[in-house]
Amino acid sequence: MRFIIQRDRLVQSVQDVMKAVSTRTTIPILTGIKMVATNEGVTLTGSDSDISIESFIPNEEAGDEIVEIKQPGSIVLQAKFFSEIVKKLPKDIVEIEVENHLQTVIRSGKSEFHLNGLDAEEYPLLPQLSEENIFRVPTDLLKAMVRQTVFAVSTSETRPILTGVNWKVEQGELTCIATDSHRLAFRKAKVETENTDHYNVVIPGKSLNELSKILDDHEEFVEIVITANQVLFKAKHLLFYSRLLEGNYPDTSRLIPTDSKTNIILNTKEFLQAIDRASLLARDGRNNVVKFSTLENGIVEISSNTPEIGKVVDEVQSQSIEGEDLKISFSAKYMMDALKALEGTDVQISFTGAMRPFYMKPLHDESILQLILPVRTY
Amino acid sequence: MRFIIQRDRLVQSVQDVMKAVSTRTTIPILTGIKMVATNEGVTLTGSDSDISIESFIPNEEAGDEIVEIKQPGSIVLQAKFFSEIVKKLPKDIVEIEVENHLQTVIRSGKSEFHLNGLDAEEYPLLPQLSEENIFRVPTDLLKAMVRQTVFAVSTSETRPILTGVNWKVEQGELTCIATDSHRLAFRKAKVETENTDHYNVVIPGKSLNELSKILDDHEEFVEIVITANQVLFKAKHLLFYSRLLEGNYPDTSRLIPTDSKTNIILNTKEFLQAIDRASLLARDGRNNVVKFSTLENGIVEISSNTPEIGKVVDEVQSQSIEGEDLKISFSAKYMMDALKALEGTDVQISFTGAMRPFYMKPLHDESILQLILPVRTY
Repeated sequence: MRFIIQRDRLVQSVQDVMKAVSTRTTIPILTGIKMVATNEGVTLTGSDSDISIESFIPNEEAGDEIVEIKQPGSIVLQAKFFSEIVKKLPKDIVEIEVENHLQTVIRSGKSEFHLNGLDAEEYPLLPQLSEENIFRVPTDLLKAMVRQTVFAVSTSETRPILTGVNWKVEQGELTCIATDSHRLAFRKAKVETENTDHYNVVIPGKSLNELSKILDDHEEFVEIVITANQVLFKAKHLLFYSRLLEGNYPDTSRLIPTDSKTNIILNTKEFLQAIDRASLLARDGRNNVVKFSTLENGIVEISSNTPEIGKVVDEVQSQSIEGEDLKISFSAKYMMDALKALEGTDVQISFTGAMRPFYMKPLHDESILQLILPVRTY
Repeated sequence: MRFIIQRDRLVQSVQDVMKAVSTRTTIPILTGIKMVATNEGVTLTGSDSDISIESFIPNEEAGDEIVEIKQPGSIVLQAKFFSEIVKKLPKDIVEIEVENHLQTVIRSGKSEFHLNGLDAEEYPLLPQLSEENIFRVPTDLLKAMVRQTVFAVSTSETRPILTGVNWKVEQGELTCIATDSHRLAFRKAKVETENTDHYNVVIPGKSLNELSKILDDHEEFVEIVITANQVLFKAKHLLFYSRLLEGNYPDTSRLIPTDSKTNIILNTKEFLQAIDRASLLARDGRNNVVKFSTLENGIVEISSNTPEIGKVVDEVQSQSIEGEDLKISFSAKYMMDALKALEGTDVQISFTGAMRPFYMKPLHDESILQLILPVRTY
């Protein structure tokens, strides 16, 4: 294998596939990056066996020569060293050559690195997915849907299925749901599907977080392929594979209250800042619980009290309070997470009593909903 | 105590004095910030008993009212909570009032915090320094002198005196020296002294690092007072006290070679980058040792080799090589630290053989010198 490549493109691709490489792997070759040079260009692959990322660098793009292949071939190089080396090479052009015994030379200007490579034949193959059923989602929408749900997955392995986000596709609509059993995040949107198939899968939260980091905002669309145990996200020159979680996701539809006794409309930012302040003096051990009470004249009081430190009382002027008066306690952290995930300047909160789950959504928007279970303190 | 204050000024002062507050202290009251309101303004103090920082906020500055004192007094508030609270207050104006039993109320807009305070009488007093002998250093020069020496202090407590920087004042000149016995950093400069006194003290490296962070680049001068066991840095509205290290600093003057057998002039940045690349494949356990050899035609070769990973060879074109040919090995980390501390585009390196300490300085500049002990590998 021998090729000459633009350094910046190589650095970008290495950074992308590095997101899948773990230093804590039981399969030693997965600490490496696989590089394959064909007559079309160079393909890099990184994987931790849960997530696999493939980045392709074409010979030519928009009339610019990016890679010049001298001799096709393949190699696996230690990701930790290879990624640091390419970043620090002195010139814009890099030559990579595999010599005898998998010895790989990386040349740029007067710098010459010799790295011990591994046989690319021993690198695990990526899953082969039948790409019959593809649906498309605009990149910015996909990133928003991930951001607005993935924070609510469980971080505990007691119920592994809850560490993922439930993705359902039905009648041209994608629904994403995440819950750690104390709160739930829900987001739906129309997507472009080519057929009437429907899916119901659970994607690991970690995979979605990595996907979000790697997706280029300049790309218009991401194509998505779902199979029985894998999901593939396809962007330009980039393939992102994730395994799916096995098991049935709980039916969450009955968790969301259908009626409400108190409805409050608040400015999202003012409310978020008041919760943030009240959480400062809320005890850590109890998930920063704050109290929320309706007062007269549309005022909402947020307070917390930890006798050994002190107490805080804050007031927020609501736009409207409809229905019964209310005193309720909840986790400040869950509330701040939920408010940050909402879009729009105003939030509508619907309560059905101090002991019942309550939910928030932007005004006049049914596509997103954040639900929180209260904490019993009153 | 009761006063009304501009939030931004309070936030700034709290952040400054926080730099001296440690959460790991054996004196519980030192986890707090002392606040004293007099008819002139408000003084905040933070201390970990090694470093103490005092920040004064005057009632009025440049015609602007900053503080309105309603009732003089004093209190100590938990630094961790107080600093978070002031940052997140909703309005530009804050009212602070001590009520009964040291209960302190912090009000801003509709937010009201009640914090349990401590009696300011129990807070340790700051050292009283006789300010007879003051010398002045421009702030940017002081920060440069700290930055160019403090990195070379020892991080090990085997010889505690080496964890500090040796400051000497003599004949209107300040000399700063730091060494961890593997390398040495030296910097001197003329300073404004009012008399013919001389000093020879050792200031803890940690104190100098904190001082650098806190000094405002907009201030022209810092006044320095040195006593037997304390040093005080005075900037506008800011006092920074540090204890001195006890013991005699070793005589380092004989460490610096007076002759040289090989003199090389290199572009500092090119050389630094080559060392950085060579260090990538140098073994961690041996302080990233790299080899340095003179070749023909004024070329310097930098290389390293770790058989299980690979090797790297880099070349740098020198401006001149005078004297004997040389092969020498040294810590890449020490070399990079030293090169980053130097000023100027070019560096002159003087060697007296592969086993002898060598030193670097900017071309035509005797005010700064970086010395490194080689490693025996050839």
